[in-house]
Amino acid sequence: MGMNDVSKLQINFKRFKKRLDELNKIGAMNGGGVCRLALSDEDKAARNLLKKWVQELGLQLEVDQIGNMFITLPGQTDAPCVMTGSHLDTVGTGGLFDGPLGVLGGLEIIETLRENDIQPKRPLKVASFTNEEGVRFTPDMMGSLAFKKANTPKELYDIESVDGKVKLGEELERIGYKGEMEPGDFPVSHFVEIHIEQGPILENEEIDIGAVTKVQGIFWTEYQILGRAAHAGTTPIPLRNDAGLVAAQLTAFVREKAEALGGAGTVGITEVSPNLINVVPEKVRLTTDLRHPEKETLHELQNTVDQKLKELCDTEGTRFERKELVRFEPVDFSPEVADLIEKQAETLGYSSRKMISGAGHDAQMMAAVCPTSMIFVPSVDGISHNIEEFTKDEDLERGINTLLHVLLVLLER
Amino acid sequence: MGMNDVSKLQINFKRFKKRLDELNKIGAMNGGGVCRLALSDEDKAARNLLKKWVQELGLQLEVDQIGNMFITLPGQTDAPCVMTGSHLDTVGTGGLFDGPLGVLGGLEIIETLRENDIQPKRPLKVASFTNEEGVRFTPDMMGSLAFKKANTPKELYDIESVDGKVKLGEELERIGYKGEMEPGDFPVSHFVEIHIEQGPILENEEIDIGAVTKVQGIFWTEYQILGRAAHAGTTPIPLRNDAGLVAAQLTAFVREKAEALGGAGTVGITEVSPNLINVVPEKVRLTTDLRHPEKETLHELQNTVDQKLKELCDTEGTRFERKELVRFEPVDFSPEVADLIEKQAETLGYSSRKMISGAGHDAQMMAAVCPTSMIFVPSVDGISHNIEEFTKDEDLERGINTLLHVLLVLLER
Repeated sequence: MGMNDVSKLQINFKRFKKRLDELNKIGAMNGGGVCRLALSDEDKAARNLLKKWVQELGLQLEVDQIGNMFITLPGQTDAPCVMTGSHLDTVGTGGLFDGPLGVLGGLEIIETLRENDIQPKRPLKVASFTNEEGVRFTPDMMGSLAFKKANTPKELYDIESVDGKVKLGEELERIGYKGEMEPGDFPVSHFVEIHIEQGPILENEEIDIGAVTKVQGIFWTEYQILGRAAHAGTTPIPLRNDAGLVAAQLTAFVREKAEALGGAGTVGITEVSPNLINVVPEKVRLTTDLRHPEKETLHELQNTVDQKLKELCDTEGTRFERKELVRFEPVDFSPEVADLIEKQAETLGYSSRKMISGAGHDAQMMAAVCPTSMIFVPSVDGISHNIEEFTKDEDLERGINTLLHVLLVLLER
Repeated sequence: MGMNDVSKLQINFKRFKKRLDELNKIGAMNGGGVCRLALSDEDKAARNLLKKWVQELGLQLEVDQIGNMFITLPGQTDAPCVMTGSHLDTVGTGGLFDGPLGVLGGLEIIETLRENDIQPKRPLKVASFTNEEGVRFTPDMMGSLAFKKANTPKELYDIESVDGKVKLGEELERIGYKGEMEPGDFPVSHFVEIHIEQGPILENEEIDIGAVTKVQGIFWTEYQILGRAAHAGTTPIPLRNDAGLVAAQLTAFVREKAEALGGAGTVGITEVSPNLINVVPEKVRLTTDLRHPEKETLHELQNTVDQKLKELCDTEGTRFERKELVRFEPVDFSPEVADLIEKQAETLGYSSRKMISGAGHDAQMMAAVCPTSMIFVPSVDGISHNIEEFTKDEDLERGINTLLHVLLVLLER
């Protein structure tokens, strides 16, 4: 097939699906879903499998100092590459598609181009970024954060795992993916990531393809609420300084306020000390995850939560400490790339719409490096970060074919 | 000193205090307080120390099948004994007095009687009951529960520790305190327990001695709230089934409703799964500790909490499972013994008042066996189940002397 016939080009979906199934045996959980926390033994096994496939294809694999992996299809020129990709790590109750779709979809596109003897003008790189989920080490999107040079690898190496047991640098070394290359050490002309929507909008509106124009901002904060342990039977309520009560009141407020402002608010972690049945809680560690597409409203939500906690503590006679874990402001994507996604979807006969991403993605880091957008495919019931996460085969296939044809345009620029 | 001079009899407070200090080295924590969870290595060491003291005094020590320990001062007759005592185990953040005051106070009274050559008509027994606190194994007040034959030792042996790692029978055997004697296998004429108040009433009213007429009822319940894990950024709030939110709403309600009904309500344990920063909680295990002196109101409080949880779950699309851990109805003590406590306090020149116990105590089990009451001494700031738990020396001494003179009357009946 010559470059004139590319309008008919299609990926080999069976080949993609076979790889996806094999990958998802790693960290598979009872009842479905996977657990491949970043830099765990499961992450190592997933990386080794990807490496094996790349080697079998005779392709070049690069690993940078933060463990990001890059597969390269050489171009006819040395012009800045076009990049696609995503991540292989998951949350603790991860689904089968969040991340691997982008990495294995990219790999499938390289193989499709190769077997059709298509050597594009620019090189094509497929990235597998380190620690996108950020559940074992914070912040999330760490590999792409390093790629855009927001932090040096050395700064990131010192980050402790959330259980305090290991440092990121040690784990990178242990699993064998602490590379030599400096992150972000090559030019990129465009970045396009394919991902499941992880929300219900495309399914509800029966639309095939989402062209993402924006990522909502994400603020993660850790609070320690400090009260006083006391006997649950003999300490009259007015004399209590109940850290558990304040945590509960804040949790209810986060949800209520986020909903009122049209954003999302979640208390994901709550750890109570001493956590005994007849002792008033002395201390609670909790986290808030606040998101909103508008910068001003996100800051208002965060400030309101902080203010509310102060009031609750004043009322109950507790106090709190506060640590900012993540502050990602909303990110605008390239309107031109989003338009191209809709155009190529239309050419392929797929319906599409512009949309905002509710989740954080490596693409939002790459948006600082080059013109960037994302392709979303529908998630059944909008479920993800859950073993029931599911996207239909035809939707996966439409998404990867759309990505193929978007990349084909960008690679020839 | 003959029996005619007993009105002047006083305990040796220094000797009592020295033993208390030595005991509280076992399980001592940084900053004060002790952790001697039932049937732990620390509990074993405390029991061994008590055993050593009893052997040094040449007294008889009996251990029953549930690990209750009894020190006996023989009487002139074989009439049913008078019993005092308490417990040596503590909560995770235990104070220095909750429990040991009753056991070592009783031992000091035996030694005082012996060195004054007083052999009472009835035998005096000092009990150290197993697992009064109930934090490592539920239910609490287990030793006295077995003593009143509410459960057989064999039934209790199968109880698992709250971390699910060991069974009670195995731990009793491991620490060497699974005795031969059947619990409750001897007659008791009266039981009087001395304990710190663990509340603020005596201190606030500047009263030396509390004569306890009643123990409020205690209901412990474990709930599992079951929702659905979901992505914290992409799952719109109306589509969530957030177990963490429902747990928080229930925690706030328990406090509010208990306060409104004049009782106590505490959520001491809250455990969230998967407990990840960007995942909506799928499951929460929490416990409620509800207390009230009136039976009807306690049942109303429990029913209202169950009903509220049902409503919260219906609204959020979660469900719950429920396990009754403890159901202790309010217990009335002997008015006659409470009157005797006030009379003997007055004779000794101490102020006193009748009061209700907010906490559960072994005495409430013994109330089913024989006429029973308790002597309370003031707790500074009403604090207990906390390393800051404190009672002044003069208050401890007044309390033990009051107990001595109450026992002297009962022993001669």
